[in-house]
Amino acid sequence: MDVKASFAATATGAGRGLHEFAARLYPICRSITGEGVRQTLALIRARVPLTVHEVPSGTRVFDWEIPPEWNVEDAAVIDADGRRVIDFQAHNLHLVSYSEPVQTSLSLEELSTRLHVLPEHPDWIPYRTSYYRRSWGFCMRARDRTALRAGRYHIEVKSSLAPGSLTYGELAIGGHTREEVLFFSHVCHPSLANDNCSGMSVATALAEWIASEPRRFTYRFVFAPGTIGSLTWLKRNESRLSRVRHALVLALLGDPGALTYKRSRRETSEIDEIVAYVLAGEGAVIPFSPYGYDERQLCSPGFDLPAGRLTRSVNGGYPQYHTSADDLSLITPAALQRSLEACQRIVEVIESNQRYLNLKPKGEPRLGARGLYGALGGQGPAEHEQAMLWMLNQSDGTRSLLDIARRSGLPYSALRDAARALETARLLASSRRRSRAVTRRRSKT
Amino acid sequence: MDVKASFAATATGAGRGLHEFAARLYPICRSITGEGVRQTLALIRARVPLTVHEVPSGTRVFDWEIPPEWNVEDAAVIDADGRRVIDFQAHNLHLVSYSEPVQTSLSLEELSTRLHVLPEHPDWIPYRTSYYRRSWGFCMRARDRTALRAGRYHIEVKSSLAPGSLTYGELAIGGHTREEVLFFSHVCHPSLANDNCSGMSVATALAEWIASEPRRFTYRFVFAPGTIGSLTWLKRNESRLSRVRHALVLALLGDPGALTYKRSRRETSEIDEIVAYVLAGEGAVIPFSPYGYDERQLCSPGFDLPAGRLTRSVNGGYPQYHTSADDLSLITPAALQRSLEACQRIVEVIESNQRYLNLKPKGEPRLGARGLYGALGGQGPAEHEQAMLWMLNQSDGTRSLLDIARRSGLPYSALRDAARALETARLLASSRRRSRAVTRRRSKT
Amino acid sequence: MDVKASFAATATGAGRGLHEFAARLYPICRSITGEGVRQTLALIRARVPLTVHEVPSGTRVFDWEIPPEWNVEDAAVIDADGRRVIDFQAHNLHLVSYSEPVQTSLSLEELSTRLHVLPEHPDWIPYRTSYYRRSWGFCMRARDRTALRAGRYHIEVKSSLAPGSLTYGELAIGGHTREEVLFFSHVCHPSLANDNCSGMSVATALAEWIASEPRRFTYRFVFAPGTIGSLTWLKRNESRLSRVRHALVLALLGDPGALTYKRSRRETSEIDEIVAYVLAGEGAVIPFSPYGYDERQLCSPGFDLPAGRLTRSVNGGYPQYHTSADDLSLITPAALQRSLEACQRIVEVIESNQRYLNLKPKGEPRLGARGLYGALGGQGPAEHEQAMLWMLNQSDGTRSLLDIARRSGLPYSALRDAARALETARLLASSRRRSRAVTRRRSKT
Repeated sequence: MDVKASFAATATGAGRGLHEFAARLYPICRSITGEGVRQTLALIRARVPLTVHEVPSGTRVFDWEIPPEWNVEDAAVIDADGRRVIDFQAHNLHLVSYSEPVQTSLSLEELSTRLHVLPEHPDWIPYRTSYYRRSWGFCMRARDRTALRAGRYHIEVKSSLAPGSLTYGELAIGGHTREEVLFFSHVCHPSLANDNCSGMSVATALAEWIASEPRRFTYRFVFAPGTIGSLTWLKRNESRLSRVRHALVLALLGDPGALTYKRSRRETSEIDEIVAYVLAGEGAVIPFSPYGYDERQLCSPGFDLPAGRLTRSVNGGYPQYHTSADDLSLITPAALQRSLEACQRIVEVIESNQRYLNLKPKGEPRLGARGLYGALGGQGPAEHEQAMLWMLNQSDGTRSLLDIARRSGLPYSALRDAARALETARLLASSRRRSRAVTRRRSKT
Repeated sequence: MDVKASFAATATGAGRGLHEFAARLYPICRSITGEGVRQTLALIRARVPLTVHEVPSGTRVFDWEIPPEWNVEDAAVIDADGRRVIDFQAHNLHLVSYSEPVQTSLSLEELSTRLHVLPEHPDWIPYRTSYYRRSWGFCMRARDRTALRAGRYHIEVKSSLAPGSLTYGELAIGGHTREEVLFFSHVCHPSLANDNCSGMSVATALAEWIASEPRRFTYRFVFAPGTIGSLTWLKRNESRLSRVRHALVLALLGDPGALTYKRSRRETSEIDEIVAYVLAGEGAVIPFSPYGYDERQLCSPGFDLPAGRLTRSVNGGYPQYHTSADDLSLITPAALQRSLEACQRIVEVIESNQRYLNLKPKGEPRLGARGLYGALGGQGPAEHEQAMLWMLNQSDGTRSLLDIARRSGLPYSALRDAARALETARLLASSRRRSRAVTRRRSKT
Repeated sequence: MDVKASFAATATGAGRGLHEFAARLYPICRSITGEGVRQTLALIRARVPLTVHEVPSGTRVFDWEIPPEWNVEDAAVIDADGRRVIDFQAHNLHLVSYSEPVQTSLSLEELSTRLHVLPEHPDWIPYRTSYYRRSWGFCMRARDRTALRAGRYHIEVKSSLAPGSLTYGELAIGGHTREEVLFFSHVCHPSLANDNCSGMSVATALAEWIASEPRRFTYRFVFAPGTIGSLTWLKRNESRLSRVRHALVLALLGDPGALTYKRSRRETSEIDEIVAYVLAGEGAVIPFSPYGYDERQLCSPGFDLPAGRLTRSVNGGYPQYHTSADDLSLITPAALQRSLEACQRIVEVIESNQRYLNLKPKGEPRLGARGLYGALGGQGPAEHEQAMLWMLNQSDGTRSLLDIARRSGLPYSALRDAARALETARLLASSRRRSRAVTRRRSKT
């Protein structure tokens, strides 16, 4: 894939900036509602003009309901000597997310069912949640758990579960058509660097880059809590979903694993073909499955959007996943930068991929007479000339640039450039104008 | 394939019973008509309520005609010393099936064109027939043929070829729908244990098992002579063939070879997909071909039924095929039992395979709120939870349980159980009721 | 592929004749117009009744125009001593094709931009053309170029570029239907033996062979200059192109490389399937691409004819391509003969490939009663009997002989013979009569 090279220069140093922004997002205690999400969106809004939406607790969202808003002031388990043996201030993963307020005293034995550890990784704190069943609990290092002595402990969870709202951010970057490309990043995980400070950082930088020049499509970025957040967005935008031409969930983009694209439920959506083509040789493509991030909701049978997912390692696919070891040392500037570049290459193909019509379809037109072909015969044509022959031959309105790239084996960019040259020479006509007209008509109804 | 395990217990000892029943069928001198077929069907009728049909000689059956009925009292070749050098009483394969009555005296040279041997297997008697050209002949061991001395021989064939009837047996086990699953076993071969005492024995036991509980489909078993018998059944049931949803020919099910499924003419009928799935890892699947057993007739282009064939070794695929070495030592209780179990697993999938509709298709419904999902988040779902997510995601009415099993890689039974749990929770609806209604309407016209 | 054998005998010695005819064509100085083409067509017309067409210079042909006619009397570069250091009389490749008339004197330095050499093959003269931009130039051995000394040279090109005509030849061999099979060979290359004296020689012999007996299809051979010639033929025959059922470009058929079939733009036209089947095991099949010979025009999107191309090596695929080393020593009688035989086998399948209808589609008809099947049962059927079963089973009007050959694995000829036997026995009916009627009706409108 040759569109790679074009970004090499502009992206130099981008990796460092991506990592720095992820590092600013990292310490915040996020959950599916609450101040942590608001602080996170504020940092993003400082860079791109995000609209922040608040949806009240209790709002019905399909089969779900927006839960009470959760906030935490402090949480700790304190031993008889007054030592905070588990301390939320030390690491926000220590508290099970959505823990209800507690002030009590328990023996170690009574407490033990509330304590979550990872015996196989004694130095890591696990990440646990209890969003929809009122409960409370603490997560800790197995090594520290072993060190707890029998006796009574004071438990204090200064949290609130009260009517409030779910918060999400949205950014639309208008293009020539109202057809949309959707990017989704989940913002509900607390101090986990790869999951998903990395995705938020890459998505923010991608939005800046997209906004930097005119685009064919309208690009929409949604920064929302997982599941309930994407469901809320879907509910509030249901009538406009027919505009979505491509969608991509961005997450887990900073670890050292290879890029991994998970296909949409349809398996052969245009976005599936585009990303598979862009990643060829440097990443993996895996089939759709109904477990993962917000593609679960976007690809539910009632919506069935053409939504794929781009990650490096997959959820559950690396040992540090959902533990305190998913920290800023796991994600690297180089990996973040390559993830951003892949997104940019995907956007480049999304923007330019289209069908053309050969305006002189009977026989080959005279390329030489139009200065498009070497005058001296007897030698084989160069890549650019081959690309023109392929474009002319295949452009009967049924094949896109990407189709022709795959059939011919020529680089996408060679065909794109050939198409432009032939369009200028009035030998090819883009079908874009026609498709735009259709789009406008559709979006008025 | 995990439905295997469920039969392991119930089937213990079944192999012995299957072999014993095959042993009772083995000595009978069967042909395409005659008393041998009647005795065979009587043994089967003692176990399942078979209806026995008699169709008179001379009846037109498509391009064919039911031949005169053939019966044999005795047959022998007797030498000058009065010794029965070839003796039908010793083995009923000695006489070419459908041999006309003869009483004559011939020199060894004159007789020799009537004698069939297998030079490469000097101790085996071949099996030969002459159904549609009046003739006579004897089959013998090559070793015995060599020992015959020059001289005159007395030939005596006390057979009859006279107006009578063709006999076949039929059993219908009614189910919730009138759509039918058809099992065919040929009953025309004399003392050949694998071909087809094994098939008759397995089919009889399968019928008992199917009748032991209520079923979705109506199951029909036909025990009929090969070719002319299946043609006769087709002729007499032509108007009802549209009810046949799946068909399976059962034969050669006792030898030690691996199970082999031969696809229907359509190659991708549902029965093809079901059996290929059930046999995965323990059997072979071979393409359709127009030679074999009664699938030749069921899959002729004028019927083109979704009819596959289940055997262990294939016809002509083992050295003892169509010789006296296809005896009771070739077939084993273990092989017969595994064949029956495979049939039962196939029936299980036939019964349960269907399409569902997700009744809450927009986003995922709340499984946790319905007690279907663990309350503590942060860990990946177990197999049962994965199966529910797959069922919900894929159930748009276009995909069957089997389709989803193949796409997800999850065990069929996990998906079936998930479907049941989701149906109980009113999240999925079976499309079975609708398909039954359609069936009833069709069968009235 | 068993139809091979049938030609082995008739073709003995054919290779020598093919090479001799190629040798007669070789010395002529051809281009896209001019006397060379006329001399070439006269040699072919001495063997088959070719119609020769002349189309005036200036005629519009789609996006093109027929250029002035080019002829050469003499051309040379002469040094100060009067020696012809580059001499058109010695080899007609020395002059760039379509060089305009010149009479001038230049220094070696001034001349050098007009001289074309192949540094990597110092003893070979390259082949160069300048059809559509008025220019002139010389091609020479790199070794001779090095030997040129500084100084002035006299250049003399006694050519003419004047109103005249483009010449092409056409031969139609009428068949039972007006549906056509088209063979195209380019006639514009000067002294290049493989490209395309070989193609012209094989095409001429193939035409003789086709004309030697009655045929189902009408066969049309076009001998025309590349590109502008095929475009001219297409322009003048546009209204009749719907008759073309198969087309094949013949070129490069004498070199020692393996036969290579290039698929049509449609990739799965019947001609693609036929040639792939015929070449299986002895040749390669490559995908379509829009560069090559006249398939470029035949397969342009405005025509999209089912046109493949048969060569041995491909254009640009052997070092001697478009150089003086593509001479009579490169092509061999054996290779030419095998190329002709492959064409004959392709024609045999084109002629006989058709769909049949089983007239007794319910069950198998009685083959034995019609003398088509052995009377003694119990043994497996031979190849001819298997072929009859396959034909009967598959002949529902949707599958051709070739489809059935590929599905069954039986030889094409066995199925063709079985079809004939079954047609004689009134068990199969050819769908040919019906298709012919359709053709007649179509061609009247």
